[in-house]
Amino acid sequence: MQLTEQATTLSSSSAPPSMSLRHVVESQQFTVPLLMELFDRARLMERIVARGGTLDYQNRILASLFYQPSTRTRFSFEAAMHRLGGRVLSTEHARAFSSEIESEQVEDSIRIIGSYSDVIVIRHHEEGGARRAAAVSPVPVINAGDGDGGQHPTQALLDLFTIYHERPIEGLSVAFIGELDRGRTVRSLAYLLAKFDRVKIYFVSPPEMQMKPDILQYLDRHNVKYELESSIDRVVGEVDVVYQTRIRPDRVSNVASRMRYAIDSSVLGKLKSNAMILHPLPRTVELDKTVDSDPRAFYFKQAANGLCVRMALLTMLLDR
Amino acid sequence: MQLTEQATTLSSSSAPPSMSLRHVVESQQFTVPLLMELFDRARLMERIVARGGTLDYQNRILASLFYQPSTRTRFSFEAAMHRLGGRVLSTEHARAFSSEIESEQVEDSIRIIGSYSDVIVIRHHEEGGARRAAAVSPVPVINAGDGDGGQHPTQALLDLFTIYHERPIEGLSVAFIGELDRGRTVRSLAYLLAKFDRVKIYFVSPPEMQMKPDILQYLDRHNVKYELESSIDRVVGEVDVVYQTRIRPDRVSNVASRMRYAIDSSVLGKLKSNAMILHPLPRTVELDKTVDSDPRAFYFKQAANGLCVRMALLTMLLDR
Amino acid sequence: MQLTEQATTLSSSSAPPSMSLRHVVESQQFTVPLLMELFDRARLMERIVARGGTLDYQNRILASLFYQPSTRTRFSFEAAMHRLGGRVLSTEHARAFSSEIESEQVEDSIRIIGSYSDVIVIRHHEEGGARRAAAVSPVPVINAGDGDGGQHPTQALLDLFTIYHERPIEGLSVAFIGELDRGRTVRSLAYLLAKFDRVKIYFVSPPEMQMKPDILQYLDRHNVKYELESSIDRVVGEVDVVYQTRIRPDRVSNVASRMRYAIDSSVLGKLKSNAMILHPLPRTVELDKTVDSDPRAFYFKQAANGLCVRMALLTMLLDR
Repeated sequence: MQLTEQATTLSSSSAPPSMSLRHVVESQQFTVPLLMELFDRARLMERIVARGGTLDYQNRILASLFYQPSTRTRFSFEAAMHRLGGRVLSTEHARAFSSEIESEQVEDSIRIIGSYSDVIVIRHHEEGGARRAAAVSPVPVINAGDGDGGQHPTQALLDLFTIYHERPIEGLSVAFIGELDRGRTVRSLAYLLAKFDRVKIYFVSPPEMQMKPDILQYLDRHNVKYELESSIDRVVGEVDVVYQTRIRPDRVSNVASRMRYAIDSSVLGKLKSNAMILHPLPRTVELDKTVDSDPRAFYFKQAANGLCVRMALLTMLLDR
Repeated sequence: MQLTEQATTLSSSSAPPSMSLRHVVESQQFTVPLLMELFDRARLMERIVARGGTLDYQNRILASLFYQPSTRTRFSFEAAMHRLGGRVLSTEHARAFSSEIESEQVEDSIRIIGSYSDVIVIRHHEEGGARRAAAVSPVPVINAGDGDGGQHPTQALLDLFTIYHERPIEGLSVAFIGELDRGRTVRSLAYLLAKFDRVKIYFVSPPEMQMKPDILQYLDRHNVKYELESSIDRVVGEVDVVYQTRIRPDRVSNVASRMRYAIDSSVLGKLKSNAMILHPLPRTVELDKTVDSDPRAFYFKQAANGLCVRMALLTMLLDR
Repeated sequence: MQLTEQATTLSSSSAPPSMSLRHVVESQQFTVPLLMELFDRARLMERIVARGGTLDYQNRILASLFYQPSTRTRFSFEAAMHRLGGRVLSTEHARAFSSEIESEQVEDSIRIIGSYSDVIVIRHHEEGGARRAAAVSPVPVINAGDGDGGQHPTQALLDLFTIYHERPIEGLSVAFIGELDRGRTVRSLAYLLAKFDRVKIYFVSPPEMQMKPDILQYLDRHNVKYELESSIDRVVGEVDVVYQTRIRPDRVSNVASRMRYAIDSSVLGKLKSNAMILHPLPRTVELDKTVDSDPRAFYFKQAANGLCVRMALLTMLLDR
């Protein structure tokens, strides 16, 4: 255990559920007690960062293995490791840089990089890439996004933390808006929300981009109420949280069509006064910049929360 | 304040003009007192590096955000942060790695990266990119080059430091040679030189690549003498400093034409015995390798000075 | 000298042959006593890493200058520097990122980067690139692979260390298999093996890809026995070490032809019971995954050894 005094107290006050966390591949892995431990640790990390402190992980190495580039997510993990006092190996775009190595070699890469590092953060262009990595890795693996229809569990953790910071998750109503079939952040957060009682989810998207059946079946099995919608107007006044996502131009090249699912000042007028607007960023036209100054806009706070949530998660994996 | 004893003494001996330095976007921001403070600090950094020392910035993070690649400039900033004891997040080529994110999103990127880091160094492919970043950033932003016709203020700072190390700037005569209309290093240094008395500038270039009117008008307003020239021979014997720059092959594909503005052994024979030859590097044919062994060649010393000048600048921004 | 107590004892017990090691360009530079010193240090590094320790190089900077990408080799060097407590500047693909700078400028880059760092690791796409870098560098240069027909000396050092860990090198018989004419790892290891008595080498490859005459002449001059073979079956039962390498698809597009030189379960049946199988990785079809669980498979251990061998080498260069 390498945390400070407060952290030691924190974790010794309860059984260590993090002992069961070896790799982070999908958000379903997280039980509610594990989430609560993570969020407690994340709050501690917030305080440590705020007072300019650091932790004692100076001999630990995080390897960032991004087969697809994502400067923000990568920086978030790497900053988290640095704020813990640790060290970083980094590749921005491993796929572009290893064309001669076929993709089935991810297992070999992980075995080798696992002998140089203490934790591996992987973003892979194929669904299941992180699971394959975890299956052979000698050190913990964190999925930082796999494929279009995969998951992005740490995004979901920071999303949930952002909400939890403001209100209880039990009884929450959430509208997911945008291109949901290829939305790995939405998929991961839906799994997490299903852990809590009396949650209600609205999936709002063009019909051809609706949430895939696997998630809906999961929600059914866990008795989570949800509705499929194609109109933002019918939903937006009902919910506590609007979770907006991009519709990529290659799917809907017509900007006007994408604008039907946009959040702008007219939508703001219909929102509850205490609603929260989230977005995993980056954004295009679906989230107007006029929203930025609205007190219900939480997306920059959400992105900033990536730091303390990932610090907390790294400590849970490295302290094992 | 995180500097050593000497540094504390240094800065407590005068009012802290660095208090006014929040972002570094353009070289005009620097007053002569601020330049002198920077250069004093840079000399202190030189001594600290020479004795293998380090400073106390181990909890501070610099984010290198290069939309255009520049290994040397990036390494110079990152080495500076490391020599201060700090930490680095780095992207080599953010533009290539984020094709789906339109360029107008630099503001969002900066807001997010600013929540993970303590200072951001940005090179942007568009003129004004650094200014846009500074306008929204929660942490100091340093312009490491913006667009073809923008600025590169830290290059100008190390250029001036290199000259100042050898002689007074007052009364200096300088010839800028090469492709001046797209020369952001020349533009930034011209602004700085205009702060000092009795400076004389010669702009030597093919007529179609002469310095743009905005700089000439600025010099007029500040009563700085300058001449526009198209012949290197008429100027080179007159000046204290030759500041050579590249003429890019895409502008003048004919090597012979570019060679009319080259520094080689025949030009060396016409230079003053105590002249200084500077070049921001990298070079092509316009600066012959035979010049390297001439005692008037200062361009490698100039590049090396990037380290201590950038260390000094970082302390001024981080100590605020 | 920055090593721990044991290390100090280690190196004070003998004359310091590492004093002769300024740059690492080619494997022939290493004498047997120097190799033994390196391997002793590597074993010490293994123990330090195993107990989570670190060393005292926190003010030293390694610059990774990869003109060709190689995530594994780069990570291995960077992890080594981090485990020493040091710091890293890194470029993944300098060639792609500096198209406008002609390749003959590597000397300028090295001069500049050498003023920002304490040791430079270079991978260059041209044979001789590392030698050119070493010729002008103010700090030690390590060749991490140059050209197709150049060398990769640190790979050979870790290869030899992996063998030496298990058995004496004197009297060893080794089969090199694959695309040998462009195999810089094989070239570098052949030079090293020639330093030891009674070594026997088999070069096994398609006739058009056999080992080049320069290596064969070197072996002749040093009285090293070797045979050229085109059949894996005639050799594989004779040798202590099988050193397998890739045959790149662009040379032999027919997979069946490449499979003639593959190691699979049928080849395993013919190997000596205590043979070692090495491969510099990454692999394609020439090394079947069924081999991975065989106790004679040493290639992941070999890759992992890169860490301690490179740590040891860095200390020898940085302690000068």
